[in-house]
Amino acid sequence: MTAYDQLVAKLKRAHTLGTVADLLGWDEQVHLPPDSADVRAGQHAVMAETQHAAATDPEIGQLLAKLESENVGTVPSPRSSDQTVVLRHARRDYDRSTKLPADFVSEKAAHSSRAYHAWADAKARNDFATYAPFLEQHLALARREAELLGWGDRPYDYAIDKHDPGLTATQITALFSELKRGLVPLVTAIRASRVSADANLFHGFPVEAQRTFLREVTERLGFNYRRGRIDVSLHPFCSGTGADIRMTTRFDADNPLDSLFSSIHETGHGLYEQGLPLAQLGTALGQAVGMAVHESQSRLWENQVARGRGFWKFFEPKFRALFPAQLATVSSDALYLAVNTVGPTLIRVDADEVHYNLHILLRFELEQRLFSGALAVRDLPAAWNALCTELLGQTPTNDREGVLQDVHWSSGGFGYFPSYCLGNMMAAQLWATVRRALPGLEDDFARGDFSRLLGWLRENIHAQGRRHDTLALVRRVTGEELSPGHLLAYLRERYGGLYLK
Amino acid sequence: MTAYDQLVAKLKRAHTLGTVADLLGWDEQVHLPPDSADVRAGQHAVMAETQHAAATDPEIGQLLAKLESENVGTVPSPRSSDQTVVLRHARRDYDRSTKLPADFVSEKAAHSSRAYHAWADAKARNDFATYAPFLEQHLALARREAELLGWGDRPYDYAIDKHDPGLTATQITALFSELKRGLVPLVTAIRASRVSADANLFHGFPVEAQRTFLREVTERLGFNYRRGRIDVSLHPFCSGTGADIRMTTRFDADNPLDSLFSSIHETGHGLYEQGLPLAQLGTALGQAVGMAVHESQSRLWENQVARGRGFWKFFEPKFRALFPAQLATVSSDALYLAVNTVGPTLIRVDADEVHYNLHILLRFELEQRLFSGALAVRDLPAAWNALCTELLGQTPTNDREGVLQDVHWSSGGFGYFPSYCLGNMMAAQLWATVRRALPGLEDDFARGDFSRLLGWLRENIHAQGRRHDTLALVRRVTGEELSPGHLLAYLRERYGGLYLK
Repeated sequence: MTAYDQLVAKLKRAHTLGTVADLLGWDEQVHLPPDSADVRAGQHAVMAETQHAAATDPEIGQLLAKLESENVGTVPSPRSSDQTVVLRHARRDYDRSTKLPADFVSEKAAHSSRAYHAWADAKARNDFATYAPFLEQHLALARREAELLGWGDRPYDYAIDKHDPGLTATQITALFSELKRGLVPLVTAIRASRVSADANLFHGFPVEAQRTFLREVTERLGFNYRRGRIDVSLHPFCSGTGADIRMTTRFDADNPLDSLFSSIHETGHGLYEQGLPLAQLGTALGQAVGMAVHESQSRLWENQVARGRGFWKFFEPKFRALFPAQLATVSSDALYLAVNTVGPTLIRVDADEVHYNLHILLRFELEQRLFSGALAVRDLPAAWNALCTELLGQTPTNDREGVLQDVHWSSGGFGYFPSYCLGNMMAAQLWATVRRALPGLEDDFARGDFSRLLGWLRENIHAQGRRHDTLALVRRVTGEELSPGHLLAYLRERYGGLYLK
Repeated sequence: MTAYDQLVAKLKRAHTLGTVADLLGWDEQVHLPPDSADVRAGQHAVMAETQHAAATDPEIGQLLAKLESENVGTVPSPRSSDQTVVLRHARRDYDRSTKLPADFVSEKAAHSSRAYHAWADAKARNDFATYAPFLEQHLALARREAELLGWGDRPYDYAIDKHDPGLTATQITALFSELKRGLVPLVTAIRASRVSADANLFHGFPVEAQRTFLREVTERLGFNYRRGRIDVSLHPFCSGTGADIRMTTRFDADNPLDSLFSSIHETGHGLYEQGLPLAQLGTALGQAVGMAVHESQSRLWENQVARGRGFWKFFEPKFRALFPAQLATVSSDALYLAVNTVGPTLIRVDADEVHYNLHILLRFELEQRLFSGALAVRDLPAAWNALCTELLGQTPTNDREGVLQDVHWSSGGFGYFPSYCLGNMMAAQLWATVRRALPGLEDDFARGDFSRLLGWLRENIHAQGRRHDTLALVRRVTGEELSPGHLLAYLRERYGGLYLK
């Protein structure tokens, strides 16, 4: 075995242990008996330790040093370019793993677990004060982690870089400011519209028939159920790799669109993972670029595709065939408007795609203030409510529908929120590009054919692995820099057409 | 931390990795997407290697040596007696793990995987010849393993000892010979009986209602669903520990007794695991004695309890309430006879409890001949068929219903089969003991109360962990040596009463 092949084997081994840990996480949300959480926590701890040991195996360091000193991957050739990608990411991941002392890693893991429970408890009791010290500690740990890794002067950029390599707060600020300038007038106009979707159209949709429908939809979009499945959990998610994708959804007999669209969203994530080169799993060539690109895939399928006319032209008859009585009094126009409901809400996960980005702007602004020290944790609820009023025109009446609503911060997940909005921008930009590249896509959809779109995404995004960082990938695929213009144009076209006629 | 506590922490760590591997196995049978078997195999391989490394951690050896040299656990006290048990088993397990070279372990694992597929393929094509070389290799590996561990002169005893510590082929031969002498006349008499159960009583039992019934039954027997669950798989099994038990069953609308009794059987295994001291999981005090004791628990609940009059007095009305139309023409006597059907079959897993033991006698005899060299693998099908004719009065028409029917040998699981029959003997002997100790048990059952029985098993069997080896435990709990007399008496009483009136 060459040194390079030895390195890849080591990387794959660490990755495999990670996939086992992921399966424990999936099982925890889908199947774990209620009193078995203690044993699962113990399993997670041992697996985290085992995985960390595999990722910091000194032989990885020796192999990397050897390969770097031999300039492997620098002689130009397709093979060497692949190796360069793998080595670059392996070096970064190895340094990140080894520069964090084991006691810091275990302290952070233990704190995350305690903080998660403190958050869940505080949310249930609507009591931010008891959770505040945990959040303060998370901020301190995040700063310390950035320092250990040489990002001491830019801890928030480090937090962003963990989710979307190469992006900075400055770049995101510029993108979000431009987005906000275009978005606010659109939101104001739609709110003033006399058109509004009927939120009470749907009642009594049996779960089994919903399951049948979403299976048909997701299969037709291209999800490979021979290497994946869908189950039920409290909050929908997608985990695993393209070798074995585990998606989840949830069912509500009075809200069939919730399970449908959450499933399509997760299918977008799943299609990305299933499109990564299977043989490269465990190296950067078989890995997603970051969270923003991941969200661009889930959002594109959920919004651009599945809230569009073509999709519904094909699926509406099938939907009606499964629920003839329930939909008897619902016109096609009412159904399509329901699919594209726009209305303000205090809760991010309930937000429509027009308002959604405002929820992210709020969180991005607050994260920056927290990291710069301009905002103290104790003042966070008031700051949240003030910004919420300003951006969304609504004020939370309690912290449960305000600052305590999201799980992310409770596990120290700072710098994650921007990915959602960046993903929305990217989805719209990819959508504009692919519609130019492949004319007649909506006609494909109207015939139930999604293969040309999937093929294009496979080739341009999925098959690339981590060859390119987020912004470079966008530039390469769309021929221009990432910008909010396409998202704004898309929102104006779709929602203007429905609400501003 | 004392050296003893350090040792226990190491043992628990290795055990936890084992429980993760078990969950992978459960998921494989219950949820794995069809094309994801390759990635699961890779996960198993990495986990096996990781677990082996944890079990052979040199620090375990150092701690054991230190504790042994200090005579820890030899000063008589309840605490020291516990420690003696833990140290004795830890030493044996450590020696077994470390005496096997890593390349032998991986060779065996790789061969098991290949041999399993060769068996499945051979069974599907009814072609023993292509599987024979794999079985030969398994025998060679089993002999080599025994040799490496110092059992070179008694390789079959080593195979037995792996499943039921302390038992030997000589002891089992004596027990089985006595059993056979009593069993054959009973089987002959029942076959000559004019009474026979109607195999075609059951049609159209909806799966959901079956699920409801078995949930009610297993919960009432005492299974704790807050630390366990039941799902569906091709072959029913029970995995996990008392901290999180995963049972499976399978449903057939025309055979509701199959899912019911297989669930009760697995519940017996699950109750044993749930009764082991949770705080001791990972040490010998929180571990089952062996397969024979495990089978005694599953069989006792399945047969002695759930095929008895008391059980059905309570559950028959509930069964009828769930399936009123399906059972309208089935009398109580016919139902009870169906629950206690006796009839020959070539297939072990379909056998009733009278015939079942004959299937085991056959396999035990053949395993002995294979290990002694008296029988060559190529002659195995003919030997199987001849012995089957002799013992069961039926001759397989092909190897699929003969020598290829069981999975055990395909993964090198020699010495496992005797446990089933030993478990049956033990169940009957425990049953005789507990009926003397707790008069009126059947009346409890008729009121739906199984708590006195479970309490007695908890105290006498489950809570003991591995304090006593198989035969010592039987002696201690029942006051006599393990013998087939109780099984024969039980079978004569139950089946004589039904078939030999």
